[in-house]
Amino acid sequence: MKALVNGIIYTSFNPVRKISGLVIANDRVIFAGDSEVARRIVELAGGEVVDLKGKFVMPAFFDSHLHLDELGMSLEMVNLRGVTSIEELVNRLKASNARIIFGFGWDQDELGRWPTREDLDTIDRPVFIYRKCFHVAVANSKMLELLNLKPSKDFDESTGLIKEKALEEARKVINEKVLSVDDYAHYILKAQDHLLNLRVHSVDFMSVNEKALRALFRLEREGKLRLNVFAYINPELLGKLESLGLGRFEGKRLVIAGVKLFTDGSLGARTALLSEPYSDDPSTSGQLVTEKEELVEVIERAKALGLDVAIHAIGDKALDVALDAFEETKFAGRIEHASVVRDDQLERIKDLGIRLSVQPHFIISDWWVVDRVGEERAKWVYRFKTLSRYAELGFSTDAPIEPADPWLTVDAAVNRGRDKVKLYELTKDESLSVSEALHFYTYGSASISLARDIGKLEPGFKAEYMVLDRNPLGSL
Amino acid sequence: MKALVNGIIYTSFNPVRKISGLVIANDRVIFAGDSEVARRIVELAGGEVVDLKGKFVMPAFFDSHLHLDELGMSLEMVNLRGVTSIEELVNRLKASNARIIFGFGWDQDELGRWPTREDLDTIDRPVFIYRKCFHVAVANSKMLELLNLKPSKDFDESTGLIKEKALEEARKVINEKVLSVDDYAHYILKAQDHLLNLRVHSVDFMSVNEKALRALFRLEREGKLRLNVFAYINPELLGKLESLGLGRFEGKRLVIAGVKLFTDGSLGARTALLSEPYSDDPSTSGQLVTEKEELVEVIERAKALGLDVAIHAIGDKALDVALDAFEETKFAGRIEHASVVRDDQLERIKDLGIRLSVQPHFIISDWWVVDRVGEERAKWVYRFKTLSRYAELGFSTDAPIEPADPWLTVDAAVNRGRDKVKLYELTKDESLSVSEALHFYTYGSASISLARDIGKLEPGFKAEYMVLDRNPLGSL
Repeated sequence: MKALVNGIIYTSFNPVRKISGLVIANDRVIFAGDSEVARRIVELAGGEVVDLKGKFVMPAFFDSHLHLDELGMSLEMVNLRGVTSIEELVNRLKASNARIIFGFGWDQDELGRWPTREDLDTIDRPVFIYRKCFHVAVANSKMLELLNLKPSKDFDESTGLIKEKALEEARKVINEKVLSVDDYAHYILKAQDHLLNLRVHSVDFMSVNEKALRALFRLEREGKLRLNVFAYINPELLGKLESLGLGRFEGKRLVIAGVKLFTDGSLGARTALLSEPYSDDPSTSGQLVTEKEELVEVIERAKALGLDVAIHAIGDKALDVALDAFEETKFAGRIEHASVVRDDQLERIKDLGIRLSVQPHFIISDWWVVDRVGEERAKWVYRFKTLSRYAELGFSTDAPIEPADPWLTVDAAVNRGRDKVKLYELTKDESLSVSEALHFYTYGSASISLARDIGKLEPGFKAEYMVLDRNPLGSL
Repeated sequence: MKALVNGIIYTSFNPVRKISGLVIANDRVIFAGDSEVARRIVELAGGEVVDLKGKFVMPAFFDSHLHLDELGMSLEMVNLRGVTSIEELVNRLKASNARIIFGFGWDQDELGRWPTREDLDTIDRPVFIYRKCFHVAVANSKMLELLNLKPSKDFDESTGLIKEKALEEARKVINEKVLSVDDYAHYILKAQDHLLNLRVHSVDFMSVNEKALRALFRLEREGKLRLNVFAYINPELLGKLESLGLGRFEGKRLVIAGVKLFTDGSLGARTALLSEPYSDDPSTSGQLVTEKEELVEVIERAKALGLDVAIHAIGDKALDVALDAFEETKFAGRIEHASVVRDDQLERIKDLGIRLSVQPHFIISDWWVVDRVGEERAKWVYRFKTLSRYAELGFSTDAPIEPADPWLTVDAAVNRGRDKVKLYELTKDESLSVSEALHFYTYGSASISLARDIGKLEPGFKAEYMVLDRNPLGSL
């Protein structure tokens, strides 16, 4: 048993509740109230009394959408963000001592042109580098040999450019052939250390493939998971779960939580599906990657196993399709991103009881978003304050897409890239208060993940907390 | 939070520790000590104070070997013992509200004649009734249609009479094809109610087949399991677990714990494998049902998934084979039953770190056992006191084979069928004290099931307890 005394302890942010003492036993809160009472309980029962000396305590963060495997990989990947020439890009990759070199973060505008297969063939090992959006990549000849991709419109063999469907295929080959379960376990532990340092104690791990799931099962039974991990699996794994009747299952740290589906791509690559063409490319409105019928079929199978369903929908038209599928199956599911939401969709989201996982830091990274959708539609973009009136909101980073540091996301939610991005002036009234942001990043994320015992520091909740020198509700 | 005050509370039986107050929060013990301290803790923290008024409390029982599905089935069976007419037999069966009606206990002499398929066809549901010996049964047309048995000398299609080999086949078809996952869930809940009433809160469910596992997964995720269930699966299911990398997994109530294997049969049927022939039938020594090589192969596969292995071994020769397999794989596994153990096997059991699940009530049911093995070998039979010096012991009932009532088993362990069975005089010194018996039935069972938080009422343990009017350590 442990008492935290003489502190300023936020047990929750909606409502904001402040106390001075906390008692923890068996990793759960058993008392939240007066400091002296907390001290006396532990003095009676026996245990440790920790004097916080006026420091602040709040629930640890819950990142409701990220990729532990890719985050771990990215921590080992060559960082190509901000690289401004092909030469520098190649030199950075050459400096890696990996057997297979992964890189990420390049942007053709910053580089001056698109990198090619030929550029990367000056490196003596397989190379695979993601654009910063992770929806486009370039591979060198050694890597293409391993990948053995079929020719398609999404794969340009001459330049080594791979996108969307072909990139999905390439990822699949990397996952199934190039990387081992040991590699996955290694990446997951790497990501775990990174997140725990940032005081993120719980995550929704999205798009879990077979090797990642095997690694998670192993780490859970070996007692090596210190994060609470809610696994949202790829639909390809459903068959194996069905063969055992295995559905939602809550372990000590690992929860088999749900299935993750996609309806569209990204705004960056103009593959997010909009109801009207892109403002900066009237030739396209993006693309639908999963038909409603297929979504419905998977939702029904997930329902039968008590699993949640989370559907990636960035464009407003993609959101229509996802909502149609949830309506048809009478399933109050989750939408991931909900980046562009029309006014007429708000009531529908509310009526269907949809939960939303949003990524405020997209505001900063997608500084070009007003160009993509135009000023008229800009008010529909990253409209978190409005969305919060119609749905439960959880915060997330989509790491490694955005940095996993929660305070950057809190800042983005509160200040919306003020003085940095064009979107700010057009959507000023979508700013959230710090307490709202912290609520969505703790109890909000837990709620949309159907975790009933995480995100507050009230009796019965898991004792996932952090100690801070400064007041989290003070100015950022 | 809840305090139990003013009680006589045994937190454990080895050592015997008695206190007067207990505090429970989040279903776990957080304080075990003085009654007044317990009261003050809960008065400070807020919660319920329960005055035990001098009553006794001890850890709930842990039955380390039983069959939830068959126990539930047996509880639903219509009792046909002592029925004296076909008419009464049919009426009793009609009164059941089961989807598929099972009955047992009839005797053709008492009935006046053998019951037939035609008699049972007046009932609108499938019917299957065992004779009192359980070696003969009769089924009606609806049931025979489901069973689809091949013609054989043991199956008379015209009368619906099924015996011996055909009955074994029918049982298999019933378990694997006739009964649905819903039926299994129903039986498991039925068994659960029965066990909770008997203050058995934790069980090792042995020989879990696919439908039982599906039912367990479903009941766990629906929050309907109130027993702690440790599932030991049939080896046929290993392949499906391997396809996901799923091994030991500890849920809220359900634990995927291990694999159950067999080396021999039973003493009753003279199929338990002895090193010397049966004393009452020198033509046989029993039979080995699984070769050592096969045991080794399954143990290795289980090890790779972090699963436990429990091997049924009743005869001393079968035990040799099981120990050989554990030695070869360097695996400190479990032996179920260990009914006949030679002196030279004791040290080996200790050296290999073997855990044992024993069923003291076999002493009562196997009243004929001295005839089977002779007076010379009788001292090797059900030698619990001796075994306890060489291995961790857990108690169990093998229900529905033996009655699930723990006090009958405690009595059998302490009094060994005194004045009832021939074995008593020959093995008097194998009697256990009540505190030893209660230790093996609580913490002992938990230990051999690798459950580190069940079986005591000390801080950190699950608060699985019972309240008693009389002193459990008093005379039986």
